[in-house]
Amino acid sequence: MRSNLLAFSVVASLALVQVAHAAEGMWVPQQLPEIAGPLKQAGLKLSAEQIADLTGDPMGAVVALGGCTASFVSPQGLVVTNHHCAYGAIQLNSTAEKNLIKDGFNAPTLKDELSAGPNARVYVLDRITDVTDQAKAAIAAAGKDPLARTRALEAFDKAQTAACEADAGFRCRLFSFSGGNTYRLFRNMEIKDVRLVYAPPGSVGKFGGDIDNWMWPRHTGDFSFYRAYVGKDGKPAAFAADNVPYQPKHFLKFADQPLGADDFVMVAGYPGRTNRYALAGEFNETASWTYPTIARHYNAVIDLIGKAGQQDADIKVKYAATMAGLNNTAKNYQGQLDGFKRIDAAGQKQAEEAAVLAWLKKRGAAGKPALAAHAQLIKHLEEGRATRDRDLIVGQFNNTSAVGAAITLYRLSIERSKADAAREAGFQDRDLPAIEGALKQMDRRYVARMDQQLQAYWLNQYAALPAAQRNNEALNQWLAGSDKAAVDGLVGKLAGTRLGSLDERLKWFKAERAAFEASTDPAIQYAVAVMPALLKQEEQKKTREGESLLSRPLYLQALADYKKSKGEFVYPDANLSLRITFGNVMGYAPKDGVAYTPFTTLEGIVAKETGADPFDSPKALLDAVMAKRYGGLEDKRVGSVPVNFLSNLDITGGNSGSPVLDAHGKLVGLAFDGNWESVSSNWVFDPVMTRMISVDSRYMQWIMQEVAPAPQLLKELNLVK
Amino acid sequence: MRSNLLAFSVVASLALVQVAHAAEGMWVPQQLPEIAGPLKQAGLKLSAEQIADLTGDPMGAVVALGGCTASFVSPQGLVVTNHHCAYGAIQLNSTAEKNLIKDGFNAPTLKDELSAGPNARVYVLDRITDVTDQAKAAIAAAGKDPLARTRALEAFDKAQTAACEADAGFRCRLFSFSGGNTYRLFRNMEIKDVRLVYAPPGSVGKFGGDIDNWMWPRHTGDFSFYRAYVGKDGKPAAFAADNVPYQPKHFLKFADQPLGADDFVMVAGYPGRTNRYALAGEFNETASWTYPTIARHYNAVIDLIGKAGQQDADIKVKYAATMAGLNNTAKNYQGQLDGFKRIDAAGQKQAEEAAVLAWLKKRGAAGKPALAAHAQLIKHLEEGRATRDRDLIVGQFNNTSAVGAAITLYRLSIERSKADAAREAGFQDRDLPAIEGALKQMDRRYVARMDQQLQAYWLNQYAALPAAQRNNEALNQWLAGSDKAAVDGLVGKLAGTRLGSLDERLKWFKAERAAFEASTDPAIQYAVAVMPALLKQEEQKKTREGESLLSRPLYLQALADYKKSKGEFVYPDANLSLRITFGNVMGYAPKDGVAYTPFTTLEGIVAKETGADPFDSPKALLDAVMAKRYGGLEDKRVGSVPVNFLSNLDITGGNSGSPVLDAHGKLVGLAFDGNWESVSSNWVFDPVMTRMISVDSRYMQWIMQEVAPAPQLLKELNLVK
Repeated sequence: MRSNLLAFSVVASLALVQVAHAAEGMWVPQQLPEIAGPLKQAGLKLSAEQIADLTGDPMGAVVALGGCTASFVSPQGLVVTNHHCAYGAIQLNSTAEKNLIKDGFNAPTLKDELSAGPNARVYVLDRITDVTDQAKAAIAAAGKDPLARTRALEAFDKAQTAACEADAGFRCRLFSFSGGNTYRLFRNMEIKDVRLVYAPPGSVGKFGGDIDNWMWPRHTGDFSFYRAYVGKDGKPAAFAADNVPYQPKHFLKFADQPLGADDFVMVAGYPGRTNRYALAGEFNETASWTYPTIARHYNAVIDLIGKAGQQDADIKVKYAATMAGLNNTAKNYQGQLDGFKRIDAAGQKQAEEAAVLAWLKKRGAAGKPALAAHAQLIKHLEEGRATRDRDLIVGQFNNTSAVGAAITLYRLSIERSKADAAREAGFQDRDLPAIEGALKQMDRRYVARMDQQLQAYWLNQYAALPAAQRNNEALNQWLAGSDKAAVDGLVGKLAGTRLGSLDERLKWFKAERAAFEASTDPAIQYAVAVMPALLKQEEQKKTREGESLLSRPLYLQALADYKKSKGEFVYPDANLSLRITFGNVMGYAPKDGVAYTPFTTLEGIVAKETGADPFDSPKALLDAVMAKRYGGLEDKRVGSVPVNFLSNLDITGGNSGSPVLDAHGKLVGLAFDGNWESVSSNWVFDPVMTRMISVDSRYMQWIMQEVAPAPQLLKELNLVK
Repeated sequence: MRSNLLAFSVVASLALVQVAHAAEGMWVPQQLPEIAGPLKQAGLKLSAEQIADLTGDPMGAVVALGGCTASFVSPQGLVVTNHHCAYGAIQLNSTAEKNLIKDGFNAPTLKDELSAGPNARVYVLDRITDVTDQAKAAIAAAGKDPLARTRALEAFDKAQTAACEADAGFRCRLFSFSGGNTYRLFRNMEIKDVRLVYAPPGSVGKFGGDIDNWMWPRHTGDFSFYRAYVGKDGKPAAFAADNVPYQPKHFLKFADQPLGADDFVMVAGYPGRTNRYALAGEFNETASWTYPTIARHYNAVIDLIGKAGQQDADIKVKYAATMAGLNNTAKNYQGQLDGFKRIDAAGQKQAEEAAVLAWLKKRGAAGKPALAAHAQLIKHLEEGRATRDRDLIVGQFNNTSAVGAAITLYRLSIERSKADAAREAGFQDRDLPAIEGALKQMDRRYVARMDQQLQAYWLNQYAALPAAQRNNEALNQWLAGSDKAAVDGLVGKLAGTRLGSLDERLKWFKAERAAFEASTDPAIQYAVAVMPALLKQEEQKKTREGESLLSRPLYLQALADYKKSKGEFVYPDANLSLRITFGNVMGYAPKDGVAYTPFTTLEGIVAKETGADPFDSPKALLDAVMAKRYGGLEDKRVGSVPVNFLSNLDITGGNSGSPVLDAHGKLVGLAFDGNWESVSSNWVFDPVMTRMISVDSRYMQWIMQEVAPAPQLLKELNLVK
């Protein structure tokens, strides 16, 4: 499971879910006192108070990377996360001669550590502030115009964020919970100098590749180490040779007691999005159109890049991360669709919503506002349906590398002409380093001839739409037809862009709006031409959001009231903010007659060996297993060194890299995936089959001992016997 | 697993295998006192003496069907066996209007029971006599000519059999154990009037079809009921309307205690062949040529019949059993090849044989005879290799329906001109009913246009052989060329045969040799033309067998001595004679991280439902499961009615239909398959993965209660509450 936070689904963060099972629940830290009983019952030996202290031990060691979770594991700023979370940094430092993806990496000394790139971040939580009253007041003050409401919330967000970030070195973010019933402002220290310390060979870190992705039994060594660096003054600073390792207040220790079946485990991390209380109609839209359609397009694009990569090593290397993302999404969607069918998710959603609406109708006048809110949300959903194919296709075309860079750069010039506080979120001064980093990173992930093929793919899809849907006038003027010749013509024209050059992109990064509008670069001319339509579309979207700002919390509150009337507990859907989830190590029964055991072992790696990617383990690993060189890390209960393990925890994309803690708060592994049957739990939780897949800390240690030795790291981790 | 006793493998019944695992061992009844300790340790509550009484309770209830095993389950001759063992009888009684394969069958009264066909038999064991000394004396008396030795053993066999069958109604058979180290004569009462009483719908009895064949998890209701009938005098008699149910001395009772994991189970039955002590060279021949070659041909034939059946319902129905057999064999061979690789069977065989030969060499003069015997066996193997492709192909052509009938009928006329005792085995008076039955049965399994396609397939294969191998002169004269035209010409010529008619076949069944030699029927003319070559080939084979009659027991005795020198126990390879095997109910781990649980349940049937064959359960079954109508047969430990279960017993083809008995000797199920990983155990036993698959008696009862009701049977089985 890789981070999968694509924005195609219209469903915002939602709702309140019943506690149906010990392991269900992405608890917000504020709820920890409430769940102290269940935590203890599940086996936690620490007090709920201790883990509620998010800047104390052990929770203070948990950090966010943006899309992934990680944790400090030494007093010298050593950070552990998944190999797939560090994959971009590993790729960035790889060349044909020095292929870190394939061979792995170990920096014997601090000097050898490699920059993880200008965009790499480590976010250390500093504080959380409840700002619900102020946020609601700001929205209310905007009156009846929905667009004004959205703008009011945006202004409030920016003002809060700006004030919060007044101290240098901090990054703040306003989170909306339960559809806008609660607002909390999170402040994180933003460490900007992140370096790659250790990665196992790709055949360990990515063992099983896309074939095993989301699968059990699993044998993936999905871990890598970063180190956080700060300026000599101890404050966050951009990469500089003389920066020094950050010294965290707290760091996790590797477990000193072996983890076994049924043992308590707990995860803290940053799950992305769940949609467990989407409307039945929103669910149906996703299940019947969004997922199948995107999966179909992505599979076609995967085929395109795959074929090109077979004949072109440059494309193969530079599009590896893109391919991994596309594969992951397409497979995830298929798994969700399978799961929806297995648990009759549509039937469950339909029945629940019917019950809520019936309950509201019975309440007479008191139920009317929520019923109206529900009707409004349904109306929005239907409005988008007419143009959904067009919007998906044009959006994807506008997101290809060169065209996407042109649109971003031109939009930046427009926004920069305004005062900072008045700019669109994402284009403020605080966002410039991220934009610049992305412009730089494009060099490693872009090959013009591949980008052109992708442009052609999406344009051909557009050209093949029914005439009534082919009504994007700005694009039509550029396309001049709906046949292959028209598509080839536009792709050929755009091929003249100079934005493939990093120097060129960085020049435009600082350019004024007028310069864009006078440019002869075809990609920039295209961006200028389509911008008015894009801005109009954005305004329409904000108008709808402004309506949802009232209707969504109203309906979700009614839903919560309904559930409370039935005696059910609730917690908010995932929204990228810090959550705690806990439960126990356990397997599951994927089908009648079959049980998945909670641990895999070294011998299972050898059994999967084919000699070919993704089942081509290093010789050192195969030799060590054949010789039963367990290095003192075997667990007698499984007869070998445990590799991966299952537990019934409730996680999702964004949780990747999360430290898994035992009953004493010690590190026993890293979460890196959910099982195939769990992916549908993003919409409808399945307590029977939902499992988290983690890499066992003993396997991490074994790899660093026996396969790709890192004696200095083992020493720093206090793992030398 | 269906009976799979094809004669292509040259390896005769062999050898003595070590007791490596509680569950390994196809024990001959004479060994029961020897294994009394292990039986008790595994959980048997009866005494070893009680089960050693093969004509007592419960073993006296176990019977053979010829290719399958069965057992009496009522005092009125009711017999239970697998659905796939009764499949021929079910098919024989099926028509397009009254499709018992699809709909199942239940005879509400005795009058409604249907003849299982002229060839159906129930063999009730009467006595076993050790005749080793006499057999060895007969062989020794024949002197140095190998062909004479074979003929001497044949004569001894026939004389013993004739004497044994002197009392009407008995059938006797001489069995050679351990390559000819022991000879035992088995006498069985031969019941010839067998009737079909009950078969579940095909979607229960064959649930999972070829897809699930040998697979776990499994959900097959593989059971059916026969009834044995005898004349009014209580003696075996051919089918007659006024025959009466046979009253067996002993019959099995359904278990009154629920079977669970780890419980003791035991099977008595008639396993066909194992080759666990084949020479390494014989093993290699099988693994590298025989299995892959036959599997390739069979898959081609399956494709041929499958395509023809799609357009021709007559072919589809009449070749259903043929197809099932071909599919079963092809899949079995592939499974064995997979297993050989998994356990490095070739390496194990090679290492063991090298150790035996080294041990013999060390013994000096004492080891020389066995070394010479080994060399002779290797020589035979190599002699056959030059013509193996030709022999396989011509043998298969001569075995197609019309041509095969012609050859059998002509051979019969030749043999019948001799005194009964001088005839070739298989063509004596005692064999005439079986031959007549096969001639009759051909009507139900033969479509001329399909038979011609199969002739053409094998002839084309012959024509495509290298010229040096295309040296079957008798066939060459008929084929007149090696191109498509020659093949089509011969098939066209043979199409003039009248042997497709039952009347015609029965006419020739009684004809004199001279009539064949004067016949104008092309198939008979072909049979007459090729007979001299066939007889010569047979004589060569007997000559080689005569050599093996001395060399095989000599080498295998040395092998046994070697194993005894290492303190290992031994038991003889399976040879179609009665064996006992015992062990415990248990699942297994097919791979790291996965455990197969020992029981499947009703819910697993519904989970597999696709609505299409072979996963199209009857509506009554689906409704009953959805309504959790368990009929009092659920087992709390599995939360439902158990359907199939796994145990670590050592069985093979021929054991199908064997009653599975619990610690008290009560019926808990029927063996019907081995798991995929077990099929290679026919050559090299794998104690880790070998499992038997049985249908649980509670599922049988549930089907007869809730799905395809048979209240009168439940009453007869004493299962009415």
